[in-house]
Amino acid sequence: MVRVDLSGAKQFFKGSGPDFELARQAHETLASGTGAGSDFTGWMAFPRYMKEHELDRIVAAAETIRSRSKALVVIGIGGSYLGARGAIELLRPIPAKEDPQIFFVGNGLSADYLCDTLDRLGDADFDVNVISKSGTTLEPAVAFRIFREKLAQKYGADADKHIFATTDAARGVLKGLANENGWESFVIPDDIGGRFSVLTAVGLLPMAVAGIDVRKVIDCAIEEMEALDLRSPENPAWQYAAARQHLYRSGYGVEILGCYEPSFRFMAEWWKQLYGESEGKDGIGIFPASVEFTADLHSMGQYIQEGARIIYESIVRFDRSLRSYAIPFEQANADGLNYVAGRNMSEVSSIAADAVKEAHISGGVPNIQINVPRRDEAGFAALVCFFEMACGISGYISGVNPFNQPGVEAYKKNMFRMLGKPGAV
Amino acid sequence: MVRVDLSGAKQFFKGSGPDFELARQAHETLASGTGAGSDFTGWMAFPRYMKEHELDRIVAAAETIRSRSKALVVIGIGGSYLGARGAIELLRPIPAKEDPQIFFVGNGLSADYLCDTLDRLGDADFDVNVISKSGTTLEPAVAFRIFREKLAQKYGADADKHIFATTDAARGVLKGLANENGWESFVIPDDIGGRFSVLTAVGLLPMAVAGIDVRKVIDCAIEEMEALDLRSPENPAWQYAAARQHLYRSGYGVEILGCYEPSFRFMAEWWKQLYGESEGKDGIGIFPASVEFTADLHSMGQYIQEGARIIYESIVRFDRSLRSYAIPFEQANADGLNYVAGRNMSEVSSIAADAVKEAHISGGVPNIQINVPRRDEAGFAALVCFFEMACGISGYISGVNPFNQPGVEAYKKNMFRMLGKPGAV
Repeated sequence: MVRVDLSGAKQFFKGSGPDFELARQAHETLASGTGAGSDFTGWMAFPRYMKEHELDRIVAAAETIRSRSKALVVIGIGGSYLGARGAIELLRPIPAKEDPQIFFVGNGLSADYLCDTLDRLGDADFDVNVISKSGTTLEPAVAFRIFREKLAQKYGADADKHIFATTDAARGVLKGLANENGWESFVIPDDIGGRFSVLTAVGLLPMAVAGIDVRKVIDCAIEEMEALDLRSPENPAWQYAAARQHLYRSGYGVEILGCYEPSFRFMAEWWKQLYGESEGKDGIGIFPASVEFTADLHSMGQYIQEGARIIYESIVRFDRSLRSYAIPFEQANADGLNYVAGRNMSEVSSIAADAVKEAHISGGVPNIQINVPRRDEAGFAALVCFFEMACGISGYISGVNPFNQPGVEAYKKNMFRMLGKPGAV
Repeated sequence: MVRVDLSGAKQFFKGSGPDFELARQAHETLASGTGAGSDFTGWMAFPRYMKEHELDRIVAAAETIRSRSKALVVIGIGGSYLGARGAIELLRPIPAKEDPQIFFVGNGLSADYLCDTLDRLGDADFDVNVISKSGTTLEPAVAFRIFREKLAQKYGADADKHIFATTDAARGVLKGLANENGWESFVIPDDIGGRFSVLTAVGLLPMAVAGIDVRKVIDCAIEEMEALDLRSPENPAWQYAAARQHLYRSGYGVEILGCYEPSFRFMAEWWKQLYGESEGKDGIGIFPASVEFTADLHSMGQYIQEGARIIYESIVRFDRSLRSYAIPFEQANADGLNYVAGRNMSEVSSIAADAVKEAHISGGVPNIQINVPRRDEAGFAALVCFFEMACGISGYISGVNPFNQPGVEAYKKNMFRMLGKPGAV
């Protein structure tokens, strides 16, 4: 499990601090399936189901793709995009020589980005993983048309063997096409919303193709979900959820998620969707933002230290780096750096993180620290399960339905009308 | 010049709306050099100076590097990092075959990121551009030690020819080392702060190595800075500055900068530093955040549409895409997409942007639109000059010194003490 350290937030708590009774009630509502949106809480029990059902087939499909292709084109948007990208950039920031490149498309409408991706793909052998519950979301549907055409040009009658569809178990346009054309398909469960789907085939197939040990991810997730069912203020999900809701009600309307590893960038994007989409409704919600330290100490650092006191920070820290590098000694010492010579960069980074924490607290920024053992499969599973559990609990504490996203339809409705889609009004 | 469209913000303006008299006064303070921090306003006149002084030498150095190396390692943090990265990702999101790869290091303390970068660099020929006013900032200084060692191992006595130092004209550790070792060096002017330095050698040398036409950038910047001196509410910098300060005082404390081109991601990071560091002080300041559309409509879209009404959005739109792609027609039309078949993706993207604007305004989010002709050297120069001018004006309207960053020292002071740096307290 991750460990939450609230010591840097305590001095900012009002009254008796975070209300763990609210966390207990919210957890009970979540676990008993009695709250708003309870039809979408399947993600808690899902890792165990995954292990017993699709996992072998996902690993086999990934092996097929890895053995024959230099690239996997992943088509998806929102929850069908950010989780896999977050995981892959975190755990495989640089593809090994034997790993296919993963290209993410269908997550926007930029012609330039599409054409550039086609250039990068070149004439490499590739497979396509199209991820969409319905098959009719505009961005991925457009990309899928384009890449089906490319597959047909390249592989002719064999093109269908290069398509893997992650979609509804039974209904929808994409499932229909998959059945009709014999594409291997994987399931987006009915009771798991997009932003909670990274541990379903949605995330796992691209991750496995990228060389991530998804069996290990799922084994760890099973343990994590179980551990996070703990009904006690010792539960890190309770601590995070209760603390952030307490800070929100004390006037801290913006949460900054930070990490000292640049590879965390897209995990932060995944986290923004998880929390922003779950809690930003009914005119309320903590605004989720992110920073990359120490880089952004030299950009957003000034604001964090001395700007409007509406922010708190949640900092993800890995206990150990994967690799080590000792700072070289220089006889001349012209740069005056010999005081850190011989020390491992990780040690220096960790001291910097402590220094930043102290500075930001002094500046009036509450600090929540989230400690994770390692930037590996287990650490990833721990982070995902922790943030998902805490999100459900935090959403119920705030009084919203954390599992719907009614606001996402507004632009689509306008867009379909303006594009002249048949039947759109 | 960019064109600012405030039509999507008007209905949210209180009273008589943005006060252009405040913008006029702030512009006068900026131009006359009578305001706080006026020692750091050299960036307005600098493009012309650059053209007549360093530009030829920058282009020549870039040609040398391009002709002999497969990679340029750029060492810098904050303003010595984000501008070049923003420009290169915007204008050269994918390096052409003949372009060296640009690696950015020294912008953090992650051992994993450093080691991964060394792996990626492999045994390719490379040059180093170290960018630091003083030469003693910890992150770049550590990276520079490491890469100097690598250069010495690879090139022996010729290593010094592979180092280009962008630093103070006369003082500081790095300038001293450059003189001593005969490194070619370029100037970080005394009257230009880091976040305003992208059009100095700080940004231009890496950009030129990446294949960007920096002569064109500077020619356009000269014109832009002149045009932006316009003292009138027609000035787009007045419009943006006055509107955002008006919105801030009406309770909109968070600005979301968005763009429909994924290649804009690091320009948004540059913008966050520019505005966050200039305005986030004295306990006030608009909190700068960013999104990438349409991707983030499926993540942050819910919050934007229905969350806490503390946000407004500023959307950068390019009038034309560089490339075009017509959406394929499919006889079967199983996905129902034929209503967009044959249409260019750029057209669809533009309609989507209109639809999003309408939806967000209906949801209670003021919209500022910033139109730029093209995603090219001229468009980049226009954006940079516009955002810099507007930042100076906006900062003076808000009452702060937009050109200092006293808060950045707090964590450094702690860090040096904890690391046991000689003399640190």
